Amino acid sequence: MPAVTQSLDELCINAIRFLAIDAVQKANSGHPGLPMGAAPMAYVLWNQFMRFNPKNPQWFNRDRFVLSAGHGCMLQYALLYLTGYDSVTIEDIKQFRQWGSHTPGHPENFETPGVEVTTGPLGQGICNAVGLAVAEAHLAARFNKPDIKLVDHYTYVILGDGCNMEGVSGEACSLAGHWGLGKLIALYDDNHISIDGSTDIAFTEDVCKRFEAYGWHVQHVADGNTDLAGIAKAIEAAKAVTDKPSLIKVTTTIGYGSPNKANTAGVHGAPLGPEEVKLTRENLGWNYEPFVVPEEVLNHFRKAIERGASYEAQWNQTLATYRQKYPEEAAEFERLLRGELPANWDANLPSYTPEDKAVATRKHSEICLNAIAPNLPELIGGSADLTHSNLTELKCSGDFQKGQYQNRNIRFGVREHGMAAICNGIALHNSGLIPYCATFLVFADYLRPALRLSALSQAGVIYVMTHDSIALGEDGPTHQPVETLASLRAIPNLLVIRPADGNETSGAYQVAVQRRKQPTLLALTRQNVPNLAGSSAANVAKGAYTLVDCEGTPDLILIGTGSEVALCVKAAETLTANGKKVRVVSMPSWELFEEQSPEYKASVLPAGVKRLAVEAAASFGWCRYADATVAIERFGASAPGNVLMEKFGFTVDNVVAKANALLG
Amino acid sequence: MPAVTQSLDELCINAIRFLAIDAVQKANSGHPGLPMGAAPMAYVLWNQFMRFNPKNPQWFNRDRFVLSAGHGCMLQYALLYLTGYDSVTIEDIKQFRQWGSHTPGHPENFETPGVEVTTGPLGQGICNAVGLAVAEAHLAARFNKPDIKLVDHYTYVILGDGCNMEGVSGEACSLAGHWGLGKLIALYDDNHISIDGSTDIAFTEDVCKRFEAYGWHVQHVADGNTDLAGIAKAIEAAKAVTDKPSLIKVTTTIGYGSPNKANTAGVHGAPLGPEEVKLTRENLGWNYEPFVVPEEVLNHFRKAIERGASYEAQWNQTLATYRQKYPEEAAEFERLLRGELPANWDANLPSYTPEDKAVATRKHSEICLNAIAPNLPELIGGSADLTHSNLTELKCSGDFQKGQYQNRNIRFGVREHGMAAICNGIALHNSGLIPYCATFLVFADYLRPALRLSALSQAGVIYVMTHDSIALGEDGPTHQPVETLASLRAIPNLLVIRPADGNETSGAYQVAVQRRKQPTLLALTRQNVPNLAGSSAANVAKGAYTLVDCEGTPDLILIGTGSEVALCVKAAETLTANGKKVRVVSMPSWELFEEQSPEYKASVLPAGVKRLAVEAAASFGWCRYADATVAIERFGASAPGNVLMEKFGFTVDNVVAKANALLG
Repeated sequence: MPAVTQSLDELCINAIRFLAIDAVQKANSGHPGLPMGAAPMAYVLWNQFMRFNPKNPQWFNRDRFVLSAGHGCMLQYALLYLTGYDSVTIEDIKQFRQWGSHTPGHPENFETPGVEVTTGPLGQGICNAVGLAVAEAHLAARFNKPDIKLVDHYTYVILGDGCNMEGVSGEACSLAGHWGLGKLIALYDDNHISIDGSTDIAFTEDVCKRFEAYGWHVQHVADGNTDLAGIAKAIEAAKAVTDKPSLIKVTTTIGYGSPNKANTAGVHGAPLGPEEVKLTRENLGWNYEPFVVPEEVLNHFRKAIERGASYEAQWNQTLATYRQKYPEEAAEFERLLRGELPANWDANLPSYTPEDKAVATRKHSEICLNAIAPNLPELIGGSADLTHSNLTELKCSGDFQKGQYQNRNIRFGVREHGMAAICNGIALHNSGLIPYCATFLVFADYLRPALRLSALSQAGVIYVMTHDSIALGEDGPTHQPVETLASLRAIPNLLVIRPADGNETSGAYQVAVQRRKQPTLLALTRQNVPNLAGSSAANVAKGAYTLVDCEGTPDLILIGTGSEVALCVKAAETLTANGKKVRVVSMPSWELFEEQSPEYKASVLPAGVKRLAVEAAASFGWCRYADATVAIERFGASAPGNVLMEKFGFTVDNVVAKANALLG
Repeated sequence: MPAVTQSLDELCINAIRFLAIDAVQKANSGHPGLPMGAAPMAYVLWNQFMRFNPKNPQWFNRDRFVLSAGHGCMLQYALLYLTGYDSVTIEDIKQFRQWGSHTPGHPENFETPGVEVTTGPLGQGICNAVGLAVAEAHLAARFNKPDIKLVDHYTYVILGDGCNMEGVSGEACSLAGHWGLGKLIALYDDNHISIDGSTDIAFTEDVCKRFEAYGWHVQHVADGNTDLAGIAKAIEAAKAVTDKPSLIKVTTTIGYGSPNKANTAGVHGAPLGPEEVKLTRENLGWNYEPFVVPEEVLNHFRKAIERGASYEAQWNQTLATYRQKYPEEAAEFERLLRGELPANWDANLPSYTPEDKAVATRKHSEICLNAIAPNLPELIGGSADLTHSNLTELKCSGDFQKGQYQNRNIRFGVREHGMAAICNGIALHNSGLIPYCATFLVFADYLRPALRLSALSQAGVIYVMTHDSIALGEDGPTHQPVETLASLRAIPNLLVIRPADGNETSGAYQVAVQRRKQPTLLALTRQNVPNLAGSSAANVAKGAYTLVDCEGTPDLILIGTGSEVALCVKAAETLTANGKKVRVVSMPSWELFEEQSPEYKASVLPAGVKRLAVEAAASFGWCRYADATVAIERFGASAPGNVLMEKFGFTVDNVVAKANALLG
């Protein structure tokens, strides 16, 4: 090999590259191209700018880093290892993409301390980053004082062409521009290559101009492969612009250093192969064995440990001063960081009797939100332009807007997907904030990729989804969920709750707020529903419970959810009048029911008793609990809600007929 | 009322407005604001520019019109009625949003001839319009001759702020700019109001600049309320630009004419109320009863009938000439329009024996696509930047690109949602084209809103979804579908097929290509699977069939789908060796199985025989067919696929153990 004299900077950058190259090669799986091309910008960012403490990845005031182009995760694992995080050792890197390792195929916050959010599905990370920046701006506005900046960090992102093609990134970046999130700095790895080849074949728009249109501060570093000073200067300039988020387009070569594969799609998502690895070593003058990092490189990177300890110590000093000067705020701030709910946060959640007026559960939800919000300052969120339909406005707060970051009502616009992904970022800021977001239930489809990531990445986002059946009426089948509940219940680690009335809505919020490692989705009616005798907030936590019982062993159990529980009660009355022994079970949540003991479950749904489920949705999945259903097996229609409910068989007569048929 | 002298143009525009106002008022439900504000641009467009034949809504060469802001559907119904479509009578308008009417709450192509696509979920319509324009460009490139323009129409869209906020519109519009679709002309109803109020609260980006960044030709009509000449001039200019799509931002007042509600969110989605309707009548000088249209207005609008007949007659003449000069092409063109498949289109679909090499079903899919493509020129589509993973390239064609519209490989970039919505537009062009699109199965979530609309609007899009289980391996849980199959099977009118091997993949394409009113989703493996003894292309159409049988009544039926059928066969061998009578049922499609006769279903799955389903996915819904499952009830993990399959229990030992447990 030629003797090449490399600067320390070059050695450090090549160390990142070869950790990625060799880990992908050993795993025989992965994406070396991005780490090879983005190593320079990542090195400059992590070495010169980012404030973090490798020995305490959860140090609150750290700068957040999001690799939105998550397939390039070896870049992030290399940085975590090199800067001295305990979560990623050289052994972990050797175990890249293996069963049980801390270095999975895409960055996962729940597997690897130091990884803030879970990325890979393209476009999500940049939106999460907007959420992290929202959280920072909000907490800074709430807690910082003229003399003390307690909350003060940047959110950095590396995103690629793929992220920029996905519509969801446009949604969140438009909002970030609108909000003027000055501490959000995104480095766009402009390598002109996506999986199918040159971006010329499908992506020729002017990305910089688009971000300018969003209100971002935009810069371009023309040579992202070697111009480290240029990258640093751009980041400095981005930091200096405090009223706009910044996009820095950094033009790079994917797979930089690979003689035959650089600047090709071939290096995007496959190992270089032993021969090309060898040639790349020669080309970059890297005379080290796989997984060997020169001591000077490691020493240099690991100064991050000392720097980090110092940053944290300084901040702890700031916190100490803050505690002294602002003890009340400090106590509140530290409560948030502990993730501890305020005492009596739920004290004002209402309870109801059947004499109380029938209102929609979306209205009950509004009452709950406003009952808890004053006592639960970490509650923050809003709707995708359906505030007065979803009824999600917090009356105790103003709008979260540019310069009004202390407020808690977020106006997401018609951007469901961006909304949910932003909420994931707020939740995973891990500062105690409880984000909620809202749209019509049918539009859960629009935000589903982010909802799935809430569930996977353990982000306790609360989804307030109203207009939860065909009973919404005239808007018609495009707006009427039918298959939606089933499609949501199928998602692991998602809690779906469909409360029947006021008490159950209060119970739903009690559960949702406390589940901080699990998203909860509330399915709420547009139409009014009566408050039921025997309904219970506390029983919601059990998922299902006996609402109306008969004497002795029932002939039949009617299982209802949400708005159909009242129908079950009425049908049970008719059936009882006809001499049948009928129990009515209200089942607001399948998932919560599954958490109960076998004994409890059997006490509610004893074996051997026929069960009829009634839900204004597809029957899909109900065979788990019921022998038959009153359900909907087609798309809805446009007509007044009460007409539809009748036409689709949600009548006492039809339920009674189905029950009798089941009883034989 | 004051005597106001109105021009005929003003009368016509007010006629549109009051049909909307009065229909919404009568229904006590709907969205009057958009029709009131957008009536002038719609009038100019339909009266001066659009070529259509009210008496033949399906006339091929008509200009297509898409109301992307579908909530404003009364605008479209008013236009259909006024211009003389039989599908919307004044009685239909009086029945707006009622059960069984042709005037549902959002435009639905399957309910109302003259409505091209189904809109309402925001952002979809503009993407459908891109698809319509793609179809036109493709057919024009294929069939037009230097001397005869057989295919030659515009696609016009009205979209609003909501559509522009949705990320999906950005995806499709970026592609439209890239492709240079010069005959796509979008009028952006810039009324500054969305449901939550002024767009100032969430939408302050520079939309025009963003579209310029996409490569569109952009204009602004500052007074869209009264400047009819300005609107006309802008449409003329848009038509003159033939190498770029055009956006015309038309600034309007939502609810124009309503003294108290114009320019407020209050007029967006609720009736004006009787008093405000009265005041609006006074304000606009509209001295007519509800649903009464002055004769001069109707006469003027209905000139469209004569014009339309003339357009169609002229075009029929063109077609006649074309037939004479280019009989072969004419025959092919007319075959397409009839929606008739070529004879022997499927003649080259391969069949296999167990001796054939084990390959992935995605590879079988590639072989099928390329076996049928040369004989099926209407097949057009591609992947969202995963061409070489999804294996969807047609080797007989080049890339559909600007100036290369005759080609059939569409490069969608990383834009799953836009891709599916564009394919809906291609399908609903109703010119025989069969669009397909592709991504990883897990990213069905990204395109789900458009997929739902494929199913609802009867668009026969073929979804080629590969990497269909945890067996995809190292990419990890973000990329591994688990709940995905269940969530898709829950959608009405969607056909999901998960073939087990080569023969079943051929059978899946046979079904998918023929279903022109129903989308089909193919779930295909990344990993190799053996070709099974007894597998059958023809049996795919039955949804499920007995692949391996025992003598007499089975003790147990193993039901497998896709890659797990081979596992069932092996487990059955072990169980049989242990003296059990075991049948193996391959079940590529639940939906197709449900279409079969009760007798057939009982012959495959006889009552009283225990059944164990084996599928590398969530068990959700399987209780419909099986007593127990080998399935996955959590998210996946990052590791080699074979390791994951073993860790998650997809082994002969585990299936046998579960089977024995079930048999007791």
